[in-house]
Amino acid sequence: MGRTSEAREKILAAAQSLIELRGYSALGVAEICKAAGVPKGSFYYFFESKETLALAVIDEQWAAQERDWARVLRGDAEPLLRLRQLFEETEHAQRSGQRSCGTVSGCMFGNLTLELSNQTEPIRIRLQQVFDAQVDMVESVVGEARERGDITATDDREAARSVVAQLEGQVLFAKLYNNTRRLDALWANCLALLGARAPQDVPVGA
Amino acid sequence: MGRTSEAREKILAAAQSLIELRGYSALGVAEICKAAGVPKGSFYYFFESKETLALAVIDEQWAAQERDWARVLRGDAEPLLRLRQLFEETEHAQRSGQRSCGTVSGCMFGNLTLELSNQTEPIRIRLQQVFDAQVDMVESVVGEARERGDITATDDREAARSVVAQLEGQVLFAKLYNNTRRLDALWANCLALLGARAPQDVPVGA
Repeated sequence: MGRTSEAREKILAAAQSLIELRGYSALGVAEICKAAGVPKGSFYYFFESKETLALAVIDEQWAAQERDWARVLRGDAEPLLRLRQLFEETEHAQRSGQRSCGTVSGCMFGNLTLELSNQTEPIRIRLQQVFDAQVDMVESVVGEARERGDITATDDREAARSVVAQLEGQVLFAKLYNNTRRLDALWANCLALLGARAPQDVPVGA
Repeated sequence: MGRTSEAREKILAAAQSLIELRGYSALGVAEICKAAGVPKGSFYYFFESKETLALAVIDEQWAAQERDWARVLRGDAEPLLRLRQLFEETEHAQRSGQRSCGTVSGCMFGNLTLELSNQTEPIRIRLQQVFDAQVDMVESVVGEARERGDITATDDREAARSVVAQLEGQVLFAKLYNNTRRLDALWANCLALLGARAPQDVPVGA
């Protein structure tokens, strides 16, 4: 296989799955190329360095996740129920990952943040952009909920940051304990952080 | 310097500071020995492997942090104020780290969890023990607050887990944005998660 866009896709897919399993620092370009089934020359044709590749992996992963988040968070359901659906889909995705890899792999952006953000400035900036975009999307739903009088939190941005921080914290525990049940608390905690009605007041499946 | 306990301490101190700066996978034994100023033979006299060293670093770090947490959380102040003091000391420690290293280094246990927990079972188990112990300590304070009628949360364990998850999530953002102000939200969020009185009802500095 030569310098086709197919080779680029194979490198990206191999890198994404290896980074998910073992992080970034532990990987070498040779290993990524072997897993992708492409010669090393192809790698450097498409990517200047391992760091350039990591940025492309982050972009690709976020493009996919952003579509999922937008489908849920810009949907027609009541604002708080969209947040609940986001947590349910997160748990579902972590469970699927666990079934296929044997372990909960967590959030790639969180993983790379704690592994790398202090080591490479371009990766730090890209990860900041990803989390800024996540907070933007949650903030917009929080604003809608506030306008409807569903919540008592008054600072949409701060509230959205806290919801995303709680999500990252619980995903960290789901990974550590290899147990997706850690994510069950997300919905009730989100309501608490937003000063919303108790969960039992929101009809299930509404 | 030979196979003295001083050499072991130097290796541990060098490893701790290198892991804090660059994570675990990116480090080699040779680099750790060089930073510690000890010959490689000394390393293998004290530590069977880099993994054994990482376990010792975790133990040492947790022994120190557990003393700090115990001083605050088993103190005489009202239960909720002890939690506030814990967050204030966390922010203070992260600010000191930022002044000395130039960047917020975050929580070593959280960093190693996201970098490593899926790769080495002994490290996963040790990190689980550390976080279990953190949750135990917070749970005990939450129980006291519940008995006093200060909070409405009824499941002490689950509430304590959520408080620690929020802490880890906000520390992740403090590291990513290299900004300890991200930790300012911890106290208000803790009160929200516990169903406690609003912050303004608790006298500042009480």
